[in-house]
Amino acid sequence: MSKVRVAAFSVSLDGFGAGPHQSLENPLGVRGTELHNWFFKTKVFQSMYGDGNGVEDVDNSFAERSFKNVGAWILGRNMFGPVRGPWLNDEWRGWWGENPSYHAPVFVLTHHKREPLVMEGGTTFYFITDGIESALQKAKEAANGKDVRIGGGVQTVRQYLQAGLIDELHLVYSPIYLGTGESLLAGIDMPKLGFSVTEKVNTENATHVILSKKS
Amino acid sequence: MSKVRVAAFSVSLDGFGAGPHQSLENPLGVRGTELHNWFFKTKVFQSMYGDGNGVEDVDNSFAERSFKNVGAWILGRNMFGPVRGPWLNDEWRGWWGENPSYHAPVFVLTHHKREPLVMEGGTTFYFITDGIESALQKAKEAANGKDVRIGGGVQTVRQYLQAGLIDELHLVYSPIYLGTGESLLAGIDMPKLGFSVTEKVNTENATHVILSKKS
Repeated sequence: MSKVRVAAFSVSLDGFGAGPHQSLENPLGVRGTELHNWFFKTKVFQSMYGDGNGVEDVDNSFAERSFKNVGAWILGRNMFGPVRGPWLNDEWRGWWGENPSYHAPVFVLTHHKREPLVMEGGTTFYFITDGIESALQKAKEAANGKDVRIGGGVQTVRQYLQAGLIDELHLVYSPIYLGTGESLLAGIDMPKLGFSVTEKVNTENATHVILSKKS
Repeated sequence: MSKVRVAAFSVSLDGFGAGPHQSLENPLGVRGTELHNWFFKTKVFQSMYGDGNGVEDVDNSFAERSFKNVGAWILGRNMFGPVRGPWLNDEWRGWWGENPSYHAPVFVLTHHKREPLVMEGGTTFYFITDGIESALQKAKEAANGKDVRIGGGVQTVRQYLQAGLIDELHLVYSPIYLGTGESLLAGIDMPKLGFSVTEKVNTENATHVILSKKS
């Protein structure tokens, strides 16, 4: 069955999914990249952004799984880029170059209209201005029976969680403390939302947990 | 050098060091015991409270280390027992039976005076009514060059952390979500307090991290 899921989402041990002060220089906030140290060395990451020579370990398997059967993506606007407010022009085309690793329709939540942006490799960014439910509905249609992956950032995941619209999360805890930034779960009661840990694997670099709703 | 430290302190992945609704039946709060699943199977725990046949794995090594070189303990009053307000009588003698596993002077933070309580095996509970600094000073004197271990609970650790009085923490993250309870680090910025992760080991059951201050 088609799922709405969060996957390969990195979190610090003090609960932050991004550092403070996001900017063009620090898209993930200050020290935010440290959250993803488990990912950078993997074959999945190196195939997308490096020399292709990555490690094929358990971290890599989880990374592979995160991309499997994904038919559409949803991103918050701040994950799409550093531009705030109205789109002054169409210059900003995402952080990921002309051939982003999504290879599927990507629905970007924003308050400001913009024409769809067709990229190479099957990625098209659609800008959705009428709320998270509408974005999810469009993403489900586009996914055509495959999963919808909520890519982030933190605030987007929180909104979908609190609305009860997420079926499964794969979180990856990195052994660092950011001290400040965007807390993924502050004030969110996962057991109350129906989630429990259905899978957990500790690797040398990270703690992987899958949170699913009891069915 | 003598350290003030927290050790073998269990935390859920959503940051809670105890569950909600602590009571005589649930000394660690609802579901709080699940935090310590990594500990129950160890030889250290089984030697203290079980049949002595525990596992001697990495979790056990960390448990052993947590008791090494401890010359005195500090506990919050709620960790000592469920009694709130003035001590009506001396009936409550701790959760741990007549021979508690401390085997050293234990300084209990309280607002209500009570005579010291001498137990078997070297444990004496002293009730300190003039604040955390005073308790620490007394504990340091009693420790006589050994370490002072802040045993808990959560609020006691938070107070000592925020006062800058802790040198080292060994936290143990268990792969569970409590959703509610006592958050260990909410609003506390560990890097800002000078802490960084100086050691980390993932076991099958838990993520052990040592946080130390840069010297």
